[in-house]
Amino acid sequence: MAIVENGDNGMTSETASKLIDEFVYKRLLRSEAQDRRMFILGEIRGEQAILCISRGAFHQDDAAIRAACGAVKNIESIQFNDIYFWYSANADDVSRPDLQLKLIYPCTEKHIRKYSAQPLRKVTETPEIYQTLVRPWMQKQREGGRLKWVYNILDGITEVEDVIFRHNDPLTGFVLLPDSQWDRKTLGTLHLLVLTERRDLMSIRDLKKSDLPWLKLMYGNLIREVTGVYPALSKDEIQLYFHYQPTYYHMHIHITNVHTEPTGGQAIGKAITVEDVISRLESLPEGKGMADISMTYVIGESSELWTDIFNA
Amino acid sequence: MAIVENGDNGMTSETASKLIDEFVYKRLLRSEAQDRRMFILGEIRGEQAILCISRGAFHQDDAAIRAACGAVKNIESIQFNDIYFWYSANADDVSRPDLQLKLIYPCTEKHIRKYSAQPLRKVTETPEIYQTLVRPWMQKQREGGRLKWVYNILDGITEVEDVIFRHNDPLTGFVLLPDSQWDRKTLGTLHLLVLTERRDLMSIRDLKKSDLPWLKLMYGNLIREVTGVYPALSKDEIQLYFHYQPTYYHMHIHITNVHTEPTGGQAIGKAITVEDVISRLESLPEGKGMADISMTYVIGESSELWTDIFNA
Repeated sequence: MAIVENGDNGMTSETASKLIDEFVYKRLLRSEAQDRRMFILGEIRGEQAILCISRGAFHQDDAAIRAACGAVKNIESIQFNDIYFWYSANADDVSRPDLQLKLIYPCTEKHIRKYSAQPLRKVTETPEIYQTLVRPWMQKQREGGRLKWVYNILDGITEVEDVIFRHNDPLTGFVLLPDSQWDRKTLGTLHLLVLTERRDLMSIRDLKKSDLPWLKLMYGNLIREVTGVYPALSKDEIQLYFHYQPTYYHMHIHITNVHTEPTGGQAIGKAITVEDVISRLESLPEGKGMADISMTYVIGESSELWTDIFNA
Repeated sequence: MAIVENGDNGMTSETASKLIDEFVYKRLLRSEAQDRRMFILGEIRGEQAILCISRGAFHQDDAAIRAACGAVKNIESIQFNDIYFWYSANADDVSRPDLQLKLIYPCTEKHIRKYSAQPLRKVTETPEIYQTLVRPWMQKQREGGRLKWVYNILDGITEVEDVIFRHNDPLTGFVLLPDSQWDRKTLGTLHLLVLTERRDLMSIRDLKKSDLPWLKLMYGNLIREVTGVYPALSKDEIQLYFHYQPTYYHMHIHITNVHTEPTGGQAIGKAITVEDVISRLESLPEGKGMADISMTYVIGESSELWTDIFNA
């Protein structure tokens, strides 16, 4: 049996498959009913491990749907009303997998925190709170090489083969990449990331009315390039948005297909569309910017923004 | 075998269960990957029927999770990288149902349209488009008694037993009700609806800077009453938002738990928080209002807004 080490863990597909058999259940970290998945903490060979079990999505080809209909077993009627009938049942089709598993092993306390259920809080960041507390905290987040991975991509040092489009210009330049969550194939779940060449913008809070021409120019370029690379998408079928607060403090934009089922990342209280930011800047007086308005958003209780600023 | 009729269909649980066996697959109407469900059109006894198959959510009690871990079969390693391992597998635990079914039988063309995939479009409604095209269209939507059901609730004629809280005042009054999607029990999925007593407001577009005191007063009242009725929720755990475009043109507010997994109704391009509307009004010049800004949102191709206005 191979010894598990970080980096090169000496695994083969066969030994990897056997890990699951050794998983010893400890406790549930989080369950997401709508996504039909749960994150479970356990132990494998004396080390902590997280197992994520999700129900598989249904296959969409005709044969698979016919098979799925035929493989429904143990049908029990729960309720009916007029033309509506509800049942519970079991899937009985071992020819196709109906579960997806993800295992993190060995995992650290940081993984456990990340996947644990986290109470959320809605906070209102006034211009004063932003200037005196949040902005200095953001600046600290940019120190100590934390943005090195972003600059590596911008400078063409890493992930060169991932770049979909690169527009070189110190002012209006940007790099277009697939988001790590996207499978890079399915247009229906398209998720791209745009890193701006401008390094002076930590977040949308740094955008001023005078940045409107820059933002509109980039917006137009992005729509043109994305619909150029993916001609099956028209300009009114892509959503462009920022996160506030973002995960890292270098200006970036998310691009998704408007048909994507929304996840937390596209919800109010977390995301704001580029069109909304443009509209907001347009209605502000000259000389003002996004730093001059109140922003209300949702954060986790374990985030430093909650522990060190809003709940301090 | 009972003859199926609308209204009283003469079904028993047993005959209802047997309907699924008679379902003949015709075509897929819609598949939702994230929700792990699909809507299938078929035929039963010569009549059209829609079958919705969803993967079951996982049970959350300790014993069920232990059982679920133990019942994972046919594990196949897909990929691994460092401490992360991905697999596909089958669930093999017939002691608990892992599917939910919903059947609509017999169904009409309207049901088929409702459950069919609908192409979406992002549109930008400028102040000019709103004034000349959208506003007159909205006014038409209020004609012919279409808002009678709202006024019936406000006047205490119907749904009297559903009302959670009623604040009587011609200016700042409102009625608080459970949304029809909410089970009225589970606080984690709380979804309430607020109908304002003011009947002059068709949508947020009618809000002016001068309405700020009214809106802030109502916002405070709503938070106080909701946390009063549901003391387990604190004021920073509820999300208050409008839809734009709304489904009906009488001013109303949605209230949900911030922990609710977001659905389409809470996504950017559809929803806007009350705090954002307040913030937008605050940064507008005196005399201006929400009618003076550009709003970008997502609509279905079969909506009249698309067919009659934006695509006309």
